[in-house]
Amino acid sequence: IAQEVSKLLEMKAQLGGEEGKHKFVLKTPKGTRDYGPKQMAIRERVFNAIVTCFKRHGAEVIDTPVFELKETLTGKYGEDSKLIYDLKDQGGELLSLRYDLTFATHLWGRAVPFARYLAMNKITNIKRYHIAKVYRRDNPAMTRGRYREFYQCDFDIAGQFDPMIPDAECLKIVHEILSDLQLGDFLVKVNDRRILDGMFAVCGVPDSKFRTICSSVDKLDKMPWEEVRSEMVGEKGLSPEAADRIGEYVQLHGGLELIERLLQDPRLSQHKLAKEGLGDMKLLFDAGQGCPGVLQISFDLSLARGLDYYTGVIFEAVLLQQEKEHGEEAAGVGSVAGGGRYDGLVGMFDPKGRKVPCVGVSIGIERIFSILEQRVEASEEKIRTTETQVLVASAQKKLLEERLKLISELWDAGIKAELLYKKNPKLLNQLQYCEDTGIPLVAIVGEQELKDGVVKLRVVATREEVSVPRESLVEEIRMRTSPP
Amino acid sequence: IAQEVSKLLEMKAQLGGEEGKHKFVLKTPKGTRDYGPKQMAIRERVFNAIVTCFKRHGAEVIDTPVFELKETLTGKYGEDSKLIYDLKDQGGELLSLRYDLTFATHLWGRAVPFARYLAMNKITNIKRYHIAKVYRRDNPAMTRGRYREFYQCDFDIAGQFDPMIPDAECLKIVHEILSDLQLGDFLVKVNDRRILDGMFAVCGVPDSKFRTICSSVDKLDKMPWEEVRSEMVGEKGLSPEAADRIGEYVQLHGGLELIERLLQDPRLSQHKLAKEGLGDMKLLFDAGQGCPGVLQISFDLSLARGLDYYTGVIFEAVLLQQEKEHGEEAAGVGSVAGGGRYDGLVGMFDPKGRKVPCVGVSIGIERIFSILEQRVEASEEKIRTTETQVLVASAQKKLLEERLKLISELWDAGIKAELLYKKNPKLLNQLQYCEDTGIPLVAIVGEQELKDGVVKLRVVATREEVSVPRESLVEEIRMRTSPP
Repeated sequence: IAQEVSKLLEMKAQLGGEEGKHKFVLKTPKGTRDYGPKQMAIRERVFNAIVTCFKRHGAEVIDTPVFELKETLTGKYGEDSKLIYDLKDQGGELLSLRYDLTFATHLWGRAVPFARYLAMNKITNIKRYHIAKVYRRDNPAMTRGRYREFYQCDFDIAGQFDPMIPDAECLKIVHEILSDLQLGDFLVKVNDRRILDGMFAVCGVPDSKFRTICSSVDKLDKMPWEEVRSEMVGEKGLSPEAADRIGEYVQLHGGLELIERLLQDPRLSQHKLAKEGLGDMKLLFDAGQGCPGVLQISFDLSLARGLDYYTGVIFEAVLLQQEKEHGEEAAGVGSVAGGGRYDGLVGMFDPKGRKVPCVGVSIGIERIFSILEQRVEASEEKIRTTETQVLVASAQKKLLEERLKLISELWDAGIKAELLYKKNPKLLNQLQYCEDTGIPLVAIVGEQELKDGVVKLRVVATREEVSVPRESLVEEIRMRTSPP
Repeated sequence: IAQEVSKLLEMKAQLGGEEGKHKFVLKTPKGTRDYGPKQMAIRERVFNAIVTCFKRHGAEVIDTPVFELKETLTGKYGEDSKLIYDLKDQGGELLSLRYDLTFATHLWGRAVPFARYLAMNKITNIKRYHIAKVYRRDNPAMTRGRYREFYQCDFDIAGQFDPMIPDAECLKIVHEILSDLQLGDFLVKVNDRRILDGMFAVCGVPDSKFRTICSSVDKLDKMPWEEVRSEMVGEKGLSPEAADRIGEYVQLHGGLELIERLLQDPRLSQHKLAKEGLGDMKLLFDAGQGCPGVLQISFDLSLARGLDYYTGVIFEAVLLQQEKEHGEEAAGVGSVAGGGRYDGLVGMFDPKGRKVPCVGVSIGIERIFSILEQRVEASEEKIRTTETQVLVASAQKKLLEERLKLISELWDAGIKAELLYKKNPKLLNQLQYCEDTGIPLVAIVGEQELKDGVVKLRVVATREEVSVPRESLVEEIRMRTSPP
């Protein structure tokens, strides 16, 4: 036994010794990940589509620090502060990482730094976007694209304007982005906080139960009405009559004609705020006459999100179930954008309580990333991680200096070019590198070509080779690699 | 007295009440700032120039989390950990924000996450860039562009290659970026860790004094040799003879001819590592024959930075003093890029100590930002914060729907367009908006134009107006707003 024990101890010591060499635990923090070149290439594609759209609509861009004073983040919203990453007290101010409070609403992460920025700089009028990482100490579900560090991507219009014009633009933006990204069919649901409030009031829901009943209604996209009703009556103590009245409303969805009908509804039309909401909803659909994208929206009385802060229109874009053509997973379904009007938030940050009306949209960029990543993986599409147009190569030895000279000329002319970092690389290896990385052209220098003042240009895909005069090489490469 | 006290108490209560309304302290954390649209526009310009250059050289891009396990960051480098932002222990792992250890060397901020990424993913070969914010609990000097949250911008080539080819590319990149950004004249100094070590050895500096003598040498860009010498001898206890021998070397700078001379130097040429370093320096200058940018470098024996981690070539780009033509401040002078070869770092993260040779450069992007911001301010150049090509306007009332229809057509055709969010805006206000924001064109719809199927296109700068058929409007706007 003693022998065995000493053997085991020896093994343990060895293991310990081995571990001592691992000076670093090689991992990223829980709920986070590195983005390698492939993920970054997909991300860049998505960011480009989104930023191009925001710029098309004349938006400016701002950025704020990754941390805020702890009290800025938690001052009013202490209840959910357990999800906030605090920085250690190392003397000085108490800080926390900016975060997203309620995942489903896509709002707070942006809203707090944005509202603080507007109030602090006394800005009453801005159309801006902000794409940045936010942090939440939540239980990560990384396979479903939920991380503790993730991007948030927001577009907001702040200012006092005529009704529904900026609101309609937010819907147009959602439509343009989702169409551009070719995510498949989607539906944009719209509703209005005031219509919801009015509906609850005229159905006989007591004020104190608005929030909890609202969160039951919000489950209608996942549960049938019967279950939602029994939750309202059984768990939440709502009267069966009130529940039935709600049931009549929340199962409605449609367009202009539904709005007109509700404007005639004997109960709802008596409620001042609901009537205002319906009037604005009509304006929104009218604006849609001009903007085809905005017409593909559905007024849906069951959309009931963010009641704590939205004050007018609310909306959400969902991807529709698709055939699993490319073996795509169910990640392709669900909410990919959301937003609404929040006229009260900035005033809470302003010392004098001055209000700045705001409407905005948050693009569910992480969900979009994971859909596209899965799609790429399933399709075995080869993602290029560089944009290199040409490899500068040689077939003979001792031409490093000539390769350097040529590539320098190309770089200076704005051509994206690479060479292998070898003195005398084999032609085969150079061609293989192009195959591996997707470089479409090879510019080959050789003794004869140098004498003749030409470069041999090879098209990797077809193996075609042409002799190009050195002075027209740049033009030739541009022509052959310009996007179709 | 009692009366006075009660008055004061009352006033205090009032103040307290007032303060109660300020639910939030409206400030960003110490050492940080918001970036408004103007700053972001300058930043975007700089980022574009830099990223375009990196892509021209075939670089991929990666990203890593903003925090790392605390032990990853501090495992080996405990001494400077007071500059690191730690996250509060909220249960789970101990985390810290990624940081930059020694400002002058531009290295660690990137190096630790990068080395961790390579070792963790067993990558032995990559050319990548990484632009991201890093954090340092330093004393901020915000007027000089030094913040606690700042961008770092790094390009590195990892892999086993033939000597000096990737090193020369790093220098070419520095040259391209600084030229592109038109920062004025600059100088790229190069040296080699092995030449420095050899120089100290043959001058008779004891091994134990290498580091401290090296940091004295590093002061030669700010102090005359006599002062540096007296620091070495007086404070650091170096023999006067050794100091004088060092003095002969460190005042040398030049090109190929200096390298050749030192290769013949009776003492230095006997030192194995120094000879290797000089041989590689010769290769670097030879490579420069092909790359004009690389030729504008100066081999400078007083460049002595980052001895803790650089193993081969080291370099630094400095802006040269300029006439204060535009009232520019002295911020325009100093180090704006630096880098070198660090073959040992990745091995420290690898469990088996496998080495991955690396060479890289860090662009001093924050200093570049503040130079450009100051230049813009001094020149009163108007920076556009949007890219809007055309404002869709009307001169008459009741044309909101027509404006919406036209702008929607333009957006769908990829034109960057805005409209005022008013039902019936005045033409004067619409023109004023263009003046204020730099929008070059106005597309005016009116009853008559609608009947005729045309749009009146007005050039804001010249007030010229032309009538354009609706179907050729997009083409006309593109033509008139395409970059020269």
